[in-house]
Amino acid sequence: MNNSKNILNYMFGKGTISNLETILNLKESVNTYIVYYIDEYFKDSDLVKKLPIKEEDKVFFVQTKDEPKTQFINEYRDILVQENKNKPKAIVAIGGGITLDTGKAVSNLLTNEGNAEDYQGWDLVKKPGIYKIGIPTISGTGAEASRTCVMTNPDSGLKLGMNSDFTIYDQLILDPDLTKTVPREQYFYTGMDTYIHCIESLNGAYRNAIGDAFSNQAISLCKEVFLSDDMMSDENREKLMVASYLGGCAIANSYVGVVHPFSAGLSVVLDTHHCIGNCITMNAMEEFYPKEYKDFFYMAKKQGIKIPKAICTDLDEQTYFNLYNSTLIHEKPLLNALGSSFKDKLTLDKVKEIFKRM
Amino acid sequence: MNNSKNILNYMFGKGTISNLETILNLKESVNTYIVYYIDEYFKDSDLVKKLPIKEEDKVFFVQTKDEPKTQFINEYRDILVQENKNKPKAIVAIGGGITLDTGKAVSNLLTNEGNAEDYQGWDLVKKPGIYKIGIPTISGTGAEASRTCVMTNPDSGLKLGMNSDFTIYDQLILDPDLTKTVPREQYFYTGMDTYIHCIESLNGAYRNAIGDAFSNQAISLCKEVFLSDDMMSDENREKLMVASYLGGCAIANSYVGVVHPFSAGLSVVLDTHHCIGNCITMNAMEEFYPKEYKDFFYMAKKQGIKIPKAICTDLDEQTYFNLYNSTLIHEKPLLNALGSSFKDKLTLDKVKEIFKRM
Repeated sequence: MNNSKNILNYMFGKGTISNLETILNLKESVNTYIVYYIDEYFKDSDLVKKLPIKEEDKVFFVQTKDEPKTQFINEYRDILVQENKNKPKAIVAIGGGITLDTGKAVSNLLTNEGNAEDYQGWDLVKKPGIYKIGIPTISGTGAEASRTCVMTNPDSGLKLGMNSDFTIYDQLILDPDLTKTVPREQYFYTGMDTYIHCIESLNGAYRNAIGDAFSNQAISLCKEVFLSDDMMSDENREKLMVASYLGGCAIANSYVGVVHPFSAGLSVVLDTHHCIGNCITMNAMEEFYPKEYKDFFYMAKKQGIKIPKAICTDLDEQTYFNLYNSTLIHEKPLLNALGSSFKDKLTLDKVKEIFKRM
Repeated sequence: MNNSKNILNYMFGKGTISNLETILNLKESVNTYIVYYIDEYFKDSDLVKKLPIKEEDKVFFVQTKDEPKTQFINEYRDILVQENKNKPKAIVAIGGGITLDTGKAVSNLLTNEGNAEDYQGWDLVKKPGIYKIGIPTISGTGAEASRTCVMTNPDSGLKLGMNSDFTIYDQLILDPDLTKTVPREQYFYTGMDTYIHCIESLNGAYRNAIGDAFSNQAISLCKEVFLSDDMMSDENREKLMVASYLGGCAIANSYVGVVHPFSAGLSVVLDTHHCIGNCITMNAMEEFYPKEYKDFFYMAKKQGIKIPKAICTDLDEQTYFNLYNSTLIHEKPLLNALGSSFKDKLTLDKVKEIFKRM
């Protein structure tokens, strides 16, 4: 029984971040302080200066060198408990996928006992988290709309989110002005996360008409953006923000395919970030997604974006073995893409060859 | 500040209506009885026999000869109060736009004082209604996703819904099996409601990237359905159900245009039903939507559907005057479509001429 949960409210448009204070004021709550997670990139920025931050609020600037670790989430929780700030009126997360996922995970952990690693998996979160508002500052991951928050647990080696309806944001503010300052490369790599998870969905076995509709529209918007002369024009940043949201809705109704498992392998073994990892993986995807492979590299060329290459050509055997394991562990998407014989198709030699092609 | 509210949960796919009992069981509530509104078309049908209706539940079969009147909604409330069934665990509405809108309106009225006519307008509903589940059995109106429930008040002559976030369904079950038995003409007329409100949105002044994305995808699905050889195939009924939902989301982010005000005129003055009224209005829309006019009639021809014509050629002057008033009262969509000088463009003579062309 797949009962898709939506974001409750979303506000879209240039300048909509100025409504944050009104939204916070409308929310009823016993406590009045807010906990903010803000991408460290915006420290000392005008964006932060204009936020309605009060003295009683708690602000964290989130580092984005590493993707979220379960330990970071536990530490945020511990600080809030120590400072008696663990029952905020709202959590507000402003940033990219890492920051948005951090806000989701902390929100769940403040109302559910135990540690972050206890909730890595499907539908393990028992109670609704703290009311949370997501404000993306880069488009593509779909983290703003998805029901997960990816976290790595270095002890168990598990890269897995709190996959739960409770993980979904209560309110989004989708303000395309916030993506103006994203560096071009990162804008492309991250935007392409939407393109890639949507082509994976449409080429998988687990499809349905509603997931397809979201994917098709998101892909169509990505193509408009990345085939245009200025992918970062006002209009295109609006379109990419919508594509990212719709791509997140698509994923809620389908599965990814071959790209994400390989990209997760890169991420776990070589610490490659998710979005650039997807793009690097595309180097080796011609046999699985021939038409989309062509389109992807055509768009990269059109935008003058170089996709890093040959990062896995010369690794030791143990590393290839680790990559193999970290890829094959993602059974659901591989089953979706390649059917029940996916393990026969992806032998150690074959997987090694694929990584070498990247 | 336009803060769009989503349907909280939706379940999509063939046979998903069988999950109704599970969904009702998952919902926590003091009372356990359910109030059902079911399109009278399904009385004595297998659909109703398979529903998890218990003895303590209250079932209404909704007549669909007339569109909802405020008085009907008040009467439903009175019956429930008399029978001490006015605090149900849930309201379940199963049917087309009339039935879905009835479920919404009664849900609001059971928790808000006064009568239905007190809430005709924007954001007048003060408290959340009874938890409600919408199950459409025909695709196109978008009533399943919209924040209004159209009602006519014969005393005031007002055709206006309870436009409110509280009007939005908490849960949808989108089961394309339920549209199998819809008569071909009605399937076309109703499906075209989606096409029409989306082309109106895309041709209006109040646009944004997210409304456009929903509209474009809904139109694209409508075209796939109505340009195919069998518009009612399993696959096409799935697509049209998705288009209707997305069209409802589009309307939440934009306005309609010229068609809906004229169609509302027909509805108020001549009792024409909404969806066929839109199609009849299309007869006279070439000057406003030339490309879409052509596409619309091409699709009708392709499906062998006759659009009624010449229903307003020979009316008395008072009736034309009433039609004029009932059309021009819809200022928001006319402003969206024609700009601030819409009253100069739509003189009495011009409006009369347009109605005569239908």
